[in-house]
Amino acid sequence: MKNILIGIDLGGTNIKIGIFDSALKLIRKTSVAAETDMGPKAVVDKMVRTIEKLLADAGLALKDVCAAGLGTPGPANYREGIIIDAANLPRFKNVPIRRMLSERIGKPVVFENDANAACWGEYVAGAGKNIRDMVFFTLGTGIGGGIISDGRLVHGSNQNGGELGHIIIYPDGRLCSCGQRGCVEAYASATATAKRATEAIEGGAESSLKEVLDKKGKITCKDVYEHLAGGDKLAKEITDQTAKALAIISVNMLHATEPQRIVFAGGVIAAGDVLLNRIRDYFGELIWSLKKETVEICFATLGEDAGIIGAAALAKEIS
Amino acid sequence: MKNILIGIDLGGTNIKIGIFDSALKLIRKTSVAAETDMGPKAVVDKMVRTIEKLLADAGLALKDVCAAGLGTPGPANYREGIIIDAANLPRFKNVPIRRMLSERIGKPVVFENDANAACWGEYVAGAGKNIRDMVFFTLGTGIGGGIISDGRLVHGSNQNGGELGHIIIYPDGRLCSCGQRGCVEAYASATATAKRATEAIEGGAESSLKEVLDKKGKITCKDVYEHLAGGDKLAKEITDQTAKALAIISVNMLHATEPQRIVFAGGVIAAGDVLLNRIRDYFGELIWSLKKETVEICFATLGEDAGIIGAAALAKEIS
Repeated sequence: MKNILIGIDLGGTNIKIGIFDSALKLIRKTSVAAETDMGPKAVVDKMVRTIEKLLADAGLALKDVCAAGLGTPGPANYREGIIIDAANLPRFKNVPIRRMLSERIGKPVVFENDANAACWGEYVAGAGKNIRDMVFFTLGTGIGGGIISDGRLVHGSNQNGGELGHIIIYPDGRLCSCGQRGCVEAYASATATAKRATEAIEGGAESSLKEVLDKKGKITCKDVYEHLAGGDKLAKEITDQTAKALAIISVNMLHATEPQRIVFAGGVIAAGDVLLNRIRDYFGELIWSLKKETVEICFATLGEDAGIIGAAALAKEIS
Repeated sequence: MKNILIGIDLGGTNIKIGIFDSALKLIRKTSVAAETDMGPKAVVDKMVRTIEKLLADAGLALKDVCAAGLGTPGPANYREGIIIDAANLPRFKNVPIRRMLSERIGKPVVFENDANAACWGEYVAGAGKNIRDMVFFTLGTGIGGGIISDGRLVHGSNQNGGELGHIIIYPDGRLCSCGQRGCVEAYASATATAKRATEAIEGGAESSLKEVLDKKGKITCKDVYEHLAGGDKLAKEITDQTAKALAIISVNMLHATEPQRIVFAGGVIAAGDVLLNRIRDYFGELIWSLKKETVEICFATLGEDAGIIGAAALAKEIS
C-alpha cells in the first residue's frame, strides 16, 4: 500500500499516533507515554519507533508513507517548525522538531498547533462536515481553539491564530496561566471549572461536592458534572458560569468570522446536553436582535482521535 | 479607455462614488447626499445619474466600465444582494439593491459590507500593504470592522463576518444600539466616547467640556479630543477608557486571527498619537507574556476614500 499518512499528537502526557490511508481512513493507532522529561531527542526517537511498529503491524513500512503531520501545544514557531517554550513540554526549548522528525523518517512533515490540527480533523471528518465556516474549542487543562474560514484553517501571521482560550471575556478578571486576566480559559476550561467549584466550597458554599473535596483532596470537572446530574445547586451555578463564558465567546466569534457551526470538544462533552443547552440559552440572551442568527452550537464527534486525524489530513495537503 | 471600475459607498447620509482605472488609480470621485428617505428606487436612480456624470466628465461612458462594487452598512444578505433592514437606511427593507443597480448599469456588481469594503481598500492600497493578515476597525457612529486572513477578506458563512463592533468586551455592560450589552461599540465608537463624556459631566464631573455642553447642548468626540489636547482631566479619562476598550479588542483579535497589523480608521484619527500610544500601552499591559508579540497598531492611511477604493478593488476581483 502506498500514500500512507501519519498523524501525530504530541501532548505533555501522551503521544498519540495514527496511520491512515490516502482517503484518511484509520489503519491503526496507538497512544504511548510522552516521557517529555527525557528531552526532545529521546521523544523523537520514541515517536519514530512507535511509527515503525504501527506500520510493521499493518504490514507496511516507512517507504509506503508520503507525509506526516505533527500537532503540539502552542505557542510555537509553526512556520519555522520550532517548539520555542511550550508550557506542557518543559524540556523543549528552541527545538527544531519538524526538521528532527522529518530527517529521521525521510518524509515531509507539516507542523501545526494541536488545537488547530484537531479543528481541521473535525472539519474534514467530524462535526464540520458540509460547511465552510467553523469555530472549534477544545476544553481540557486549558482551552484550545481553531477557526475555519471559507474552508481554510486560519493560521495567522505567525501560525498562532486560533488561540481562542486567551480571548479576554472579563477584563481585569481571573488570572490565567498565560499571564493575562479574564481569559475564557480562566473560567471555562475543565481545570478552571473545577477550580471555581473548589474555591466556592472553601469559601463556605454548601454542596454535595464538599464530600468529594474532603475525601479526595480535590475536585475535578467530571465531579462537577456528576453532581450537576445529581441536582447539586453549587454544581449548577458553576456549570452556569462555564456556560455563560462559552456563550460570550460564541457570540464574539460569531461576530468575528461568522461560523455556521461552533463546535466544543474535550472533557466538556461529559456534561452532556445540559451544558450545551445552557450555552445555547445564554447565547440567545446575549446575541443581538438585528438579524436572526442560525449558527449551530454542538459537540465534536471524533473524540480523542481528532488530533491525529487532523494532523494526517494536514499532511495530505502537502503530499 | 476600458476596464473602468466603479466604487460606491452608500451611507445613511452620503453616497460616495469613484471611478478608477484597471490599476485602481482614482480617475474622479464625488459625494452626493443620499436622500435615503426618497426610497430605494430614487437612490439607485441618483447613483446611476452620478456615475454617468462622473464618467462623462472624464470623457468616458458606461460601455468603458467592466464592473462596480457597492458597500452598504450591515447586517444585510450580501450573498443574495439584498438590504434587509439596515439601521442607517430606514426605507430600505428587503431591497434587492445589487440586482437593481446591475440592471440599470448593465454591468456585474459586487455587494459588500461597507466596513469590509473599506478594510479591503486599506489592505490593497493603504495601511495593509505588504502584509497578509490584518484587522481593521472604523470608528464613527458605530464601529465597523474587517478581517484579512492570509490575503483574503473573511466574509463569514452569511457574508456578515467582521462585525467587530459587536464583540462583547464587558459582559452585562453598556447597552449597545444592536441590543447587546457591553459591545466594544458601546464604549469606543465616536458616539459612545462623546456619550460617556456627556454622562460624566451630567453626573457632576469637572471638566472644560462642561462649557461646550452648556453652550452647544451636546459634546462630540472631536470636542473630547480637543480638550484632551488642552489638558482636560476628564477628557483624558474618557480617552483612556476608549483606548482600553480598543486595546482589549486588539488583544482578542490577535488571539483570534493573529493579524500582523491592527488598523484604526475614522474620526478616532483626530485624536492623534496620544490615543494610539495609549492603545499600545494598554495592549502591552493586557497581552500575555508567553511569547513576544510584534503586531503593529496603527492608523489607516486612505481617509474617507477607503470605502470606494475597496469597493472598486472588489469589483476588479469579479471582472
